[in-house]
Amino acid sequence: MKLNPYFADLDESYFFSEMRARTDAYAAMHPDEHLYRMGIGDVTQPLCPAVIQGLMRGVRDQSTMETFHGYLFECGTDFLRSAIAEHYATRGVTLFPEEIFITSGAGDEIGALGDLFSSDNTVLVTEPAYPAYVDTSIMGGRRIVHLPSGKADGFLPMPVPDLKADLIFLCSPNNPTGAAYTKAQLKEWVDYANTQEAVILFDAAYEAFITDSDVPHSIFEIDGAERCAIEICSLSKTAGFTGTRCGYTIVPNALIRNGQSLRALWVRSRTTKTNGISYILQRGAEAVFTPAGQAQTKASIAVYQENARIWMDALDRAGLWYTGGRNAPYIWVACPNGRSSWAMFDLLLTKAQIIVTPGVGFGACGEGFFRISMFSEPSEASAAAERFLSLMQTL
Amino acid sequence: MKLNPYFADLDESYFFSEMRARTDAYAAMHPDEHLYRMGIGDVTQPLCPAVIQGLMRGVRDQSTMETFHGYLFECGTDFLRSAIAEHYATRGVTLFPEEIFITSGAGDEIGALGDLFSSDNTVLVTEPAYPAYVDTSIMGGRRIVHLPSGKADGFLPMPVPDLKADLIFLCSPNNPTGAAYTKAQLKEWVDYANTQEAVILFDAAYEAFITDSDVPHSIFEIDGAERCAIEICSLSKTAGFTGTRCGYTIVPNALIRNGQSLRALWVRSRTTKTNGISYILQRGAEAVFTPAGQAQTKASIAVYQENARIWMDALDRAGLWYTGGRNAPYIWVACPNGRSSWAMFDLLLTKAQIIVTPGVGFGACGEGFFRISMFSEPSEASAAAERFLSLMQTL
Repeated sequence: MKLNPYFADLDESYFFSEMRARTDAYAAMHPDEHLYRMGIGDVTQPLCPAVIQGLMRGVRDQSTMETFHGYLFECGTDFLRSAIAEHYATRGVTLFPEEIFITSGAGDEIGALGDLFSSDNTVLVTEPAYPAYVDTSIMGGRRIVHLPSGKADGFLPMPVPDLKADLIFLCSPNNPTGAAYTKAQLKEWVDYANTQEAVILFDAAYEAFITDSDVPHSIFEIDGAERCAIEICSLSKTAGFTGTRCGYTIVPNALIRNGQSLRALWVRSRTTKTNGISYILQRGAEAVFTPAGQAQTKASIAVYQENARIWMDALDRAGLWYTGGRNAPYIWVACPNGRSSWAMFDLLLTKAQIIVTPGVGFGACGEGFFRISMFSEPSEASAAAERFLSLMQTL
Repeated sequence: MKLNPYFADLDESYFFSEMRARTDAYAAMHPDEHLYRMGIGDVTQPLCPAVIQGLMRGVRDQSTMETFHGYLFECGTDFLRSAIAEHYATRGVTLFPEEIFITSGAGDEIGALGDLFSSDNTVLVTEPAYPAYVDTSIMGGRRIVHLPSGKADGFLPMPVPDLKADLIFLCSPNNPTGAAYTKAQLKEWVDYANTQEAVILFDAAYEAFITDSDVPHSIFEIDGAERCAIEICSLSKTAGFTGTRCGYTIVPNALIRNGQSLRALWVRSRTTKTNGISYILQRGAEAVFTPAGQAQTKASIAVYQENARIWMDALDRAGLWYTGGRNAPYIWVACPNGRSSWAMFDLLLTKAQIIVTPGVGFGACGEGFFRISMFSEPSEASAAAERFLSLMQTL
């Protein structure tokens, strides 16, 4: 009996528990103070009425013999795959429904997609990074090369021709930095991947927050991406599905490596290792792509975008350098006066009762930065931004 | 770029597509004939009212800010883990809620649990077997030893002391044979696993069909199982969740290998590679364990059990050897007069319009047998059993 040997290579992450411990300790000592929680990457708006109706229809269908659904095709229902294909068509991206795999969400897919690849591969992770890219790669026994970024490149690292990689995680708009690649920048990554015969795992979880017209919502807006990219999409942030769970992954027919279709391999993986996604959740997800669903989910996102406007205004007035906010629900801020991430965390917690996420938790190059999440009630965001600005003016 | 090298070791399964092709060809030539579909392992009864109410409550909770749930703990909600622990307590099995992991169902877990183990392990698969045990082991790069069974042991193979294995798949009540281990038999397997320091992956998907008092519902009714077994449970057959998707897996605290807690490793795997199971589905699953849910799901199962009674009566009258039916929704029948599985399939299809599953599809030792599924409407089951008996009387 041998256990998975790669678990031992995982760093025990004390980061988030340390954040929680410092917050809890402060709260225990100041039980009457209100804390402004701007560290959480989770939605606060409930599901929109169209999605609730879709879910209710799904539940009702399961209640009578005539409309009941048992086992479904593991890769997704025709109705949802077609709805997503039509949604992509409105952006000028042509997909066959068979290229769209319905999933439990992006977090689950980042874990599962490793099944396609040998342990003997090198994974490029741009930093700062969502920790799951690193941890799932380690658990799969893969080598990791880190590509750091910083103020100089606006936290949008570009490919380094001499750096060899087999798999490349890209997240745009980015968590944690909120920075988003333009079409021209993403084209450089696509060309690099095609030259190297690498595969890009493109995390598009935050695409619904994009406002700039030259920032692509899908990597498949870029010529050649269909030959090198898998796109991992989520309804978590698009439609508030963080606790409801449904998403989709696109594996194009044109993606061939070593003479094999990755789409065909993924069909084989999913049909062997899963029994597909709940009919009820797929009916809820379908509703996101209706005209009513699109209008209502955009209205929810507008709440977070208004929070971003408030925070960007406060940061501009404080004269602090930042990325994000424009196309993402995160703002990534340079700590003033050379403070460390944790020093800034402690300062904001103790002097303004605002909780942010220290940037160093997302990789070494995040030191000296912190992340503010836009996922909060507008009244909280505006009160917190005001307290933040007042504190900055005292420094 | 190297793909997962083990996909190439998978046999292309033509079995189920061959079944479909022969059925479709017959139906095309006889468009007016009704086909009695007894080959399908999928429920036909809709979800019971208690579960529908639980799901509706889940959907409603997601519709308002006060009751909305975002990200949940990846291993499961407290309310559902506690409900399951209380359910096990009624059987005399004491579990801590933390030992219960909420899942998308057994099919998904069989695929995912490989993450705990090194490729360098030997997997024992009893045959006939559900194909996923073999295919997921191959995809994980593991060696497989097959332990065949047959009429002599009633399709209940017992451990062979000289056979070394690191992982052992057991399914009781069994798919496809419907045979179920007694407590004494399962105790032999538990002792064998503990002696070998192997881990039993116990698939309990069909436990709700057990009627014999000496057949355990859970492997944890056996002393010592908590030191060697992981139990994979499903609501698919228990409560009709095949298309709704929710189940649970039990990894006991006492299960230690190479000095490591498998439960702790599984927490690390799930928290890194998943974002947990839908709040809505967990509310539906919770309702299964209420008094109303228990009564109503038992009533659904009684429908399939009545089908089994009808079929067993017909088989007894035909004088055919079979296993299953008593504690399982499957009956596994010896083909009369030395016929092959496929010859029997063709005979039943063309002479009685009944579709069964050829036993050879579950491994070589299934040759000469066929599986009848009890998942059908009672009127279908009784009409099919009558046609079957008439045909057998002509042989």
